[in-house]
Amino acid sequence: MVRGRISRLSVRDVRFPTSLGGHGADAMHTDPDYSAAYVVIETDAEDGIKGCGITFTLGKGTEVDWSRKGRGAPGDSGRPKRGVGLVGQAGGKACLEVTCGHEILQKGQIGKKEREKQMLAQGYPAYTTSCAWLGYSDDTLKQLCAQALKDGWTRFKVKVGADLQDDMRRCQIIRDMIGPEKTLMMDANQRWDVPEAVEWMSKLAKFKPLWIEEPTSPDDILGHATISKALVPLGIGIATGEQCHNRVIFKQLLQAKALQFLQIDSCRLGSVNENLSVLLMAKKFEIPVCPHAGGVGLCELVQHLIIFDYISVSASLENRVCEYVDHLHEHFKYPVMIQRASYMPPKDPGYSTEMKEESVKKHQYPDGEVWKKLLPAQEN
Amino acid sequence: MVRGRISRLSVRDVRFPTSLGGHGADAMHTDPDYSAAYVVIETDAEDGIKGCGITFTLGKGTEVDWSRKGRGAPGDSGRPKRGVGLVGQAGGKACLEVTCGHEILQKGQIGKKEREKQMLAQGYPAYTTSCAWLGYSDDTLKQLCAQALKDGWTRFKVKVGADLQDDMRRCQIIRDMIGPEKTLMMDANQRWDVPEAVEWMSKLAKFKPLWIEEPTSPDDILGHATISKALVPLGIGIATGEQCHNRVIFKQLLQAKALQFLQIDSCRLGSVNENLSVLLMAKKFEIPVCPHAGGVGLCELVQHLIIFDYISVSASLENRVCEYVDHLHEHFKYPVMIQRASYMPPKDPGYSTEMKEESVKKHQYPDGEVWKKLLPAQEN
Repeated sequence: MVRGRISRLSVRDVRFPTSLGGHGADAMHTDPDYSAAYVVIETDAEDGIKGCGITFTLGKGTEVDWSRKGRGAPGDSGRPKRGVGLVGQAGGKACLEVTCGHEILQKGQIGKKEREKQMLAQGYPAYTTSCAWLGYSDDTLKQLCAQALKDGWTRFKVKVGADLQDDMRRCQIIRDMIGPEKTLMMDANQRWDVPEAVEWMSKLAKFKPLWIEEPTSPDDILGHATISKALVPLGIGIATGEQCHNRVIFKQLLQAKALQFLQIDSCRLGSVNENLSVLLMAKKFEIPVCPHAGGVGLCELVQHLIIFDYISVSASLENRVCEYVDHLHEHFKYPVMIQRASYMPPKDPGYSTEMKEESVKKHQYPDGEVWKKLLPAQEN
Repeated sequence: MVRGRISRLSVRDVRFPTSLGGHGADAMHTDPDYSAAYVVIETDAEDGIKGCGITFTLGKGTEVDWSRKGRGAPGDSGRPKRGVGLVGQAGGKACLEVTCGHEILQKGQIGKKEREKQMLAQGYPAYTTSCAWLGYSDDTLKQLCAQALKDGWTRFKVKVGADLQDDMRRCQIIRDMIGPEKTLMMDANQRWDVPEAVEWMSKLAKFKPLWIEEPTSPDDILGHATISKALVPLGIGIATGEQCHNRVIFKQLLQAKALQFLQIDSCRLGSVNENLSVLLMAKKFEIPVCPHAGGVGLCELVQHLIIFDYISVSASLENRVCEYVDHLHEHFKYPVMIQRASYMPPKDPGYSTEMKEESVKKHQYPDGEVWKKLLPAQEN
């Protein structure tokens, strides 16, 4: 099925100055500029088929900066994420449709048509992380939370882990605003040691979080199992996975009963194939997949995977929800569509990875228009 | 203690065409060119103090090349190793002496002077991996093994895992040559799944290996625990660690009883500090540390760590031995000294990381003299 040869490959360092507004700040990343290595592979095929790929990075973008703490755990501010996920645009069909065609699970075929219709009509349920970054003031938090409620959101994630008193106050604000019935998740971004995670979360248990996300080093499978054993009796599940770099890590998290919610990341795992193997394992262990999203383009990519998961693998929405962060979608050619707090299935060709050329040009580091203005200002 | 400011930093891509001779070939890396990112940090201090650091890579050096197998496990040929280890030259004192000064373990002080004397006189016991790379013919294997026996080596490692019949033949040759008393180790370089590792090694058990190294994915802690449980009754220990990127992974390997021999890597773990924390954990769990070495400069670096381990932490040589590979030492300013199959303690300043400028120039990729000759030849 050769339709052309690769004629050009470009890699660009695209950075968005999100740190200026405190967007994306959490217990580990205090000043992130959301960034991406953006790759376009062009061909000489007659139909002009091309592939676009992104890898989302945090902190100082693609620069490696060893943490002064000397901590071995990955994920410190300024250190790029470990996995690399580049996926070409399949061309002609939405990635969702292509993967659905694989018919990996015979059992997943039962009721598949109905689930497809259901997705097209209702979309896949999402939660929002946009209200409660650590960098926001209480006033901003309240204002964003009120707006989100107005927009129909029913599930909210709050960043915790930097200061317990601060967390108590912020969780109280948000729980008061959303009421006792709506869902609250918490995310510590690997901030704690194992005993610290149990202790801290025991104190936050009164705010009834559905899960605590990344309570400790993402590499610490046995540590997560210990935390899980302590917190599940308090009604708190463990969510992790956004930093897990391959299916071997997920296999162990499942084997060790270390998580109750599995968070795949479209850019961390090595492309669609590795993600599919994790979806299948999660199904086998009956653990719900609740993807990590946000950053640069993660929402655009991961919606394909999670809607495929529902239609062809899990066949369930129970305890399942996909992260949504309302940032940077305007830079994508085929941005996600959110309706009634749900991801509406993408219908455009490919994996929704293509960025607007104008946005790439503007945000290229350090020569794009945005950085040409910002960099001299930061030096003063 | 500021004695100067950094005045210059250079990073060079240095590659040695080791694949031409089949050196370094194993079940996962069939054609490795041993390579290194070599960093020199210069200062304006009066005494000209500078720091040198290397990161060893395999395959195509520093190029990232996604395996066509789509396998998530790290370590495929052509993929650089995951950790990055850069260590500056401390200047004036051997790194060994500096770290000894930390007196981390009070208990390690008892008998320390005697152990120092013992090391200076006898050195630290080593084993050789130079005889039995997968790329060597049986004749080469026999010839190298005969020479190694003549040179006083008593511990030998053979690469296995690509083909069982091949392994049986090669192990028979080497066991026949070294006799029943000398030590044989085996190394599968992550080639197997968990059940495959147990099955394969059950068949190689008759050659009485001390350990099987990297039987499966280095990320699979629980898999190693399963393999360990099956093979320890057959008298075979599990050795792993060269691909483990931080102390969190080692903590779990120790907690899960997943290994009997712990292999630190001086370039994989984030510098001396992270290595020290692993040495201390290994002591706590009473697991012997048997460092990974070879590659470009790993022997030069790791000798400091393991001699420190003996003098100040483990205080034991039981079941302990450090890997030695007889390649590329001639490119280092302070190469390791091996006497009677033992590492003799380095006495020169620093961490023995400095390369000869002439070697770096010659092997820089792609503009060094060596590559200028080789690259056009390879294209034809």
